Amino acid sequence: MSVYTNVSEAELTAWLANYSVGRLVACEPIKAGIENSNYFVTTTQGRYVLTLFERLPAEELPFYLGLMAHLARHGIPCPAPIADLSDRYLQHLKGKPAALVTRLAGASIERPDAAACAELGSLLARMHLAARSYGAYLENPRGPKWWRAAAHEVRPFMEKSQHELLESELAFQSQHRFPDLPRGPVHADLFRDNALFEGGRISGVIDFYFAGVDCLLYDVAVCANDWCLADPAREGALDGARSGALLAAYDAVRPLTALERDAWPVMLRAAALRFWLSRLHDFHLPRPGMLVHAHDPEHFRRILARRIAGHQAGGVPWIGG
Amino acid sequence: MSVYTNVSEAELTAWLANYSVGRLVACEPIKAGIENSNYFVTTTQGRYVLTLFERLPAEELPFYLGLMAHLARHGIPCPAPIADLSDRYLQHLKGKPAALVTRLAGASIERPDAAACAELGSLLARMHLAARSYGAYLENPRGPKWWRAAAHEVRPFMEKSQHELLESELAFQSQHRFPDLPRGPVHADLFRDNALFEGGRISGVIDFYFAGVDCLLYDVAVCANDWCLADPAREGALDGARSGALLAAYDAVRPLTALERDAWPVMLRAAALRFWLSRLHDFHLPRPGMLVHAHDPEHFRRILARRIAGHQAGGVPWIGG
Repeated sequence: MSVYTNVSEAELTAWLANYSVGRLVACEPIKAGIENSNYFVTTTQGRYVLTLFERLPAEELPFYLGLMAHLARHGIPCPAPIADLSDRYLQHLKGKPAALVTRLAGASIERPDAAACAELGSLLARMHLAARSYGAYLENPRGPKWWRAAAHEVRPFMEKSQHELLESELAFQSQHRFPDLPRGPVHADLFRDNALFEGGRISGVIDFYFAGVDCLLYDVAVCANDWCLADPAREGALDGARSGALLAAYDAVRPLTALERDAWPVMLRAAALRFWLSRLHDFHLPRPGMLVHAHDPEHFRRILARRIAGHQAGGVPWIGG
Repeated sequence: MSVYTNVSEAELTAWLANYSVGRLVACEPIKAGIENSNYFVTTTQGRYVLTLFERLPAEELPFYLGLMAHLARHGIPCPAPIADLSDRYLQHLKGKPAALVTRLAGASIERPDAAACAELGSLLARMHLAARSYGAYLENPRGPKWWRAAAHEVRPFMEKSQHELLESELAFQSQHRFPDLPRGPVHADLFRDNALFEGGRISGVIDFYFAGVDCLLYDVAVCANDWCLADPAREGALDGARSGALLAAYDAVRPLTALERDAWPVMLRAAALRFWLSRLHDFHLPRPGMLVHAHDPEHFRRILARRIAGHQAGGVPWIGG
């Protein structure tokens, strides 16, 4: 089984009559994705992705869809929500909140080189600049408040040494907040599988359903911790050439401030902490009916430990060094 | 010379810094177009068209750009205006109002067959349905009010028989208005060169700078008078198979009312009158610095005469006959 909610061709055909996208040609469930049910939908007009929102809080959905629409009309290659005949992005299908968005060409790459990291850095900076005129507001739903709640829930399942690492990092992060760093809407989950490439260029950034307002630099750190791991990745070290390429390309579009440069090692730790916590949570407290196996939390524990060690030794790679 | 205002690469590079579309790769003036200066612009992100508005009233531009943005986010394949970093579609370049829109793939077809006319009819109906939720309003700038003003200006240049035809058609049309027909934003200039095809499908409808609110059926009539002429086209007769295909495909998406069916012969005459008038005007009163030779007005005089004769004989082709 690959989706939570099954939609028949007849149901989809009837639903699409509320849109200006022509007649249904084909519909295929998408196997990936743990938060929503997704379908590739092809009509006489074009190619789309249909998403039925299974778990996201309904009040957050307009923020995500509005952000995607905002970025798309600024030229950022991201799924553009399609408005229906009553001019709304958010509809319902089979009793679930649902949206139709454009389907983008391209494929994700598993082993990005420095050029791909530079492409990512440049696009990320352009996305941050474009997003700053977006009017809606949603605090990063996986920010410090959520860290504390998630930590509380996973503690009973953790070994003592891991528990101590978690406690000490939460304490460290609470003493190192950066209220003066540039903030704005960030993707906050731009892992390799959420970027599509075509001809060496990013043809699509997808899956904005963890987006929120946070430090822009946090978004860069999330990327670095996934895109720029040195081989072997399981050791969690950063590859200086790739993280340098990411930062330099980002900086060329949106110059990083001195404050941001100082905050970089802490931000890398914060980004590692966030994903360690969500993987611990998915692992120890799987949601009923969860269809995809949880990622091993250990990967991000090692990354966090490595970032802490690097920070303490003063050895976190920065642009050109 | 192919554009009114020359933009250098350096000027364009500086201007594009206000957008999220990456770095300039190439810029090429577009030779067609008599109202604006247009450039194909390629950046590291994508392909765009830059338009500098040379003559259009500045107060009308937000209606056109907003309509294109509205249709694009409803899935209609039309140029999508790109918002700049201050979130505006309309900017200035070289002292002229200017906008950047997406460039669509495909090519116009000179000799459409019935299948192409059906594709047009279907898209036109979807466009009309999508446009009805557009909030802005602009009366068709080439509607009856403009007909009278234009007729007044071209009269001194016209032969007696033509003058009489014009007067009698203006009188006829003023007695045959249709306030109860479905109205909404219409393209109003969807000639063959304003539709791009790719793989038998319309991949783009372009040039919305004559759009306005009018009878939806008027838009269909404008198309029929250009897309559905029987060979030889200079005789102005409609080809029943192609106009039937246009209307049937339109009707399948937005069913035409009995009132609209009755109004069809009059609407074909109105659409012929509007283009005869604008061609007379461009021919006899060319604007200073006009760069493209005016079309021969005679083509639309013959079409108008033919529509009047067909109407009077009761022989205007309709769906299936």
